Amino acid sequence: MKLSVCDYPAPTTDNPSRDYSRSDVVLPASRADAVAMDAADPLANVRDQFQLPDDTIYLCGNSLGPLAKRAATRLQDGVQRQWGQDLIRSWNANSWFTLPERLAPRIARLIGAEAREVTVADSTSVNLFKVVAAARSLRQGRTRVVTEAGNFPTDAYVLEGLAELMRDPQPPVLARREQLLESIDDDTAVVVLTHVHYKDSALFDMAELTQHAHRHGALIVWDLSHSVGALPVDLNACDADFALGCTYKYLNGGPGAPAFIYAATRHHAAMQPGLVGWWGHAQPFAFDDTYAAGAGMRRMLTGTGSILGMIALEAALEVFDELDMQVLRAKSLALCDLFSRLVEQKCAGHGLSQASALPLAQRGSHIALRHEAGYAIIQSLIRRNVVGDFRAPDVIRFGLAPLFVRFQDVWDAVDALADVLTSGAWRNSALTQRATVT
Amino acid sequence: MKLSVCDYPAPTTDNPSRDYSRSDVVLPASRADAVAMDAADPLANVRDQFQLPDDTIYLCGNSLGPLAKRAATRLQDGVQRQWGQDLIRSWNANSWFTLPERLAPRIARLIGAEAREVTVADSTSVNLFKVVAAARSLRQGRTRVVTEAGNFPTDAYVLEGLAELMRDPQPPVLARREQLLESIDDDTAVVVLTHVHYKDSALFDMAELTQHAHRHGALIVWDLSHSVGALPVDLNACDADFALGCTYKYLNGGPGAPAFIYAATRHHAAMQPGLVGWWGHAQPFAFDDTYAAGAGMRRMLTGTGSILGMIALEAALEVFDELDMQVLRAKSLALCDLFSRLVEQKCAGHGLSQASALPLAQRGSHIALRHEAGYAIIQSLIRRNVVGDFRAPDVIRFGLAPLFVRFQDVWDAVDALADVLTSGAWRNSALTQRATVT
Repeated sequence: MKLSVCDYPAPTTDNPSRDYSRSDVVLPASRADAVAMDAADPLANVRDQFQLPDDTIYLCGNSLGPLAKRAATRLQDGVQRQWGQDLIRSWNANSWFTLPERLAPRIARLIGAEAREVTVADSTSVNLFKVVAAARSLRQGRTRVVTEAGNFPTDAYVLEGLAELMRDPQPPVLARREQLLESIDDDTAVVVLTHVHYKDSALFDMAELTQHAHRHGALIVWDLSHSVGALPVDLNACDADFALGCTYKYLNGGPGAPAFIYAATRHHAAMQPGLVGWWGHAQPFAFDDTYAAGAGMRRMLTGTGSILGMIALEAALEVFDELDMQVLRAKSLALCDLFSRLVEQKCAGHGLSQASALPLAQRGSHIALRHEAGYAIIQSLIRRNVVGDFRAPDVIRFGLAPLFVRFQDVWDAVDALADVLTSGAWRNSALTQRATVT
Repeated sequence: MKLSVCDYPAPTTDNPSRDYSRSDVVLPASRADAVAMDAADPLANVRDQFQLPDDTIYLCGNSLGPLAKRAATRLQDGVQRQWGQDLIRSWNANSWFTLPERLAPRIARLIGAEAREVTVADSTSVNLFKVVAAARSLRQGRTRVVTEAGNFPTDAYVLEGLAELMRDPQPPVLARREQLLESIDDDTAVVVLTHVHYKDSALFDMAELTQHAHRHGALIVWDLSHSVGALPVDLNACDADFALGCTYKYLNGGPGAPAFIYAATRHHAAMQPGLVGWWGHAQPFAFDDTYAAGAGMRRMLTGTGSILGMIALEAALEVFDELDMQVLRAKSLALCDLFSRLVEQKCAGHGLSQASALPLAQRGSHIALRHEAGYAIIQSLIRRNVVGDFRAPDVIRFGLAPLFVRFQDVWDAVDALADVLTSGAWRNSALTQRATVT
């Protein structure tokens, strides 16, 4: 076999964002070639740790990660033994009380943080609220909050709700991407950005933007929902202030799994998340009427967390234990490269375009294509058990999660896409728009 | 068999709070009598719907309800088929998106609400925050918030955090119970009360207190965590404004299960919960940058809810489907009556006292006793597999959940308590205080 996209070398420290757009990469010439690539894939055995349906090509791991076998086993234990048999004694006997701390080191490793800088609680949206309120508590007197227009909308909604609650004189600033830098000024309290854009997959330069915010005296919050678990993240190397992220996308924690929060150690003593509760109290079992914030990340907890959700998440995170995120990133880029090149080769002339003009090295782990009939096309694909998703008004997304997506899946998915386009199958289907979820 | 506490007639409309302190009630004279009572119990078969450990007398259903068999089955389906096989398609195929609405009618029936007035989301603490913020949005200009001192502390913490975030001129007022009425004045925006007190089990008069708050132009929020599922609640008959409650206590939803929210229909159009997100948006899949609150209770949702948590909760709620809450209340009072009388009879002279002087009809479904060595006593009991719990500084609690606690359990539990006290077993045990959780 000749040099091909599957020969993915792990990016080195010198060259962390290896350019996959180089012209000397040779495509696999056949499905058999793609299968051979999978056989040679150093991450091939990771796929075996998941219960994936046999008849489906699942390219939605960026929206809902699949079920790890060990998560299923652990949930069974959580339900039958911990809840069913040990009952209330599980708070001690099965260490439910310290689940957020138990989860922290595994997440910390994936995001370039110390374990003491991470906790798990609530939903991504609720955690964004807490984290931005905490950042605001460290920048009192400033009320300007900046985020990107067109960011995942819940981020904007959370900021809008908080601004109204705090009686801010102005609503949050939603800056277009190209005006982001200039919209951060010396009145800015907090900048909220998503590391990888949910729609067009743009990967933001965390180090540069963090530095820029800091130059203006602002703090920065990174939403890692679409990057964590798919590519290396190094919050501390970038001097980030706060972060949060979803655990049911690339981390495979399960539907509606609790989200995580990061706060740099330097902020721990003074940060006030505003939304507090018994689980964040310094002495939760003293039953004092007065709130006394717990040490470190404990104060970012509010009420009782989802125990079963954290049990599943712990197992799902264990899948990452032996993995090098640089290797995952290299495979992810190879998958994206193959997908993009095959689309170019097999789907030309049908009105598809890449949603992002950025090179792959500046994108995340999903491919976003635009087509005016995107919804009907994705529905046609889903009927063929190639599961991607649609984001209004015209984006179809294919999540190429490197933990379990194979090169043969990419081959087959693009074949199916080409067939849907050339056959015009999507035109004939009576497809009505229904809910789908990031 | 003579008249006894087990002959519990359902309270009638004329006499909803039948007085169980009447002197003509005859105690069962033996364990065999108690067993006979269970055999005659019209609710006896409900216990069979739960997976309870054989060797344990579980009197902590007021803290963590047991596992309903159907909840275990449904969770298995939720994990293996819905998550594992259907994956992202479950948002439509298994109606994940409408889970909060699916749960609503079952909860509504238990709290005297209409289905459209109820939703399920987040934790109890987070929901309290949203509900109080929503009430505040309807009473702009007033900043006084009143709650009871010594209420379950998270309620006070949430109010304190919100007040700081909203830059209120004063912290929330924590009024002693006997000063509650007078502490509600014409500047009061919101009164937050717990229907049944987590510690001493006092049952507040919802109708009277709601009326009192309204007379002063204030709105009222009821925390139903320790009443829902154990006794009839009728929010609409009491003209309540908002309510919320835990689902993992008497509702048996599972550890850290998502909580519920109630808002009276008259408040739906104008209420603003402050903590908003994509799931509460009027058009969540339009991906607009601007928040537009969804209709009715949808706007009380924030981020993605715990899907597995809601799946388990749905099954747990089905246990209540055929049950009359008046019958449950009657059994609960009979259990409490028996427990109290046996304690009086068998445990006298050991320094135990009732935490509440109220008649049983004005208490919830748990018995709270005071003892200066309460922690050591409860630990001794737990070692004998009689599971109650302890609340600092000196309260031991026995939850007598009428769904599954039997008269023989009460008999055996008090025997064990008497034995621990008379033998002095608790004095010898090297018992150190560890975390336990409501």
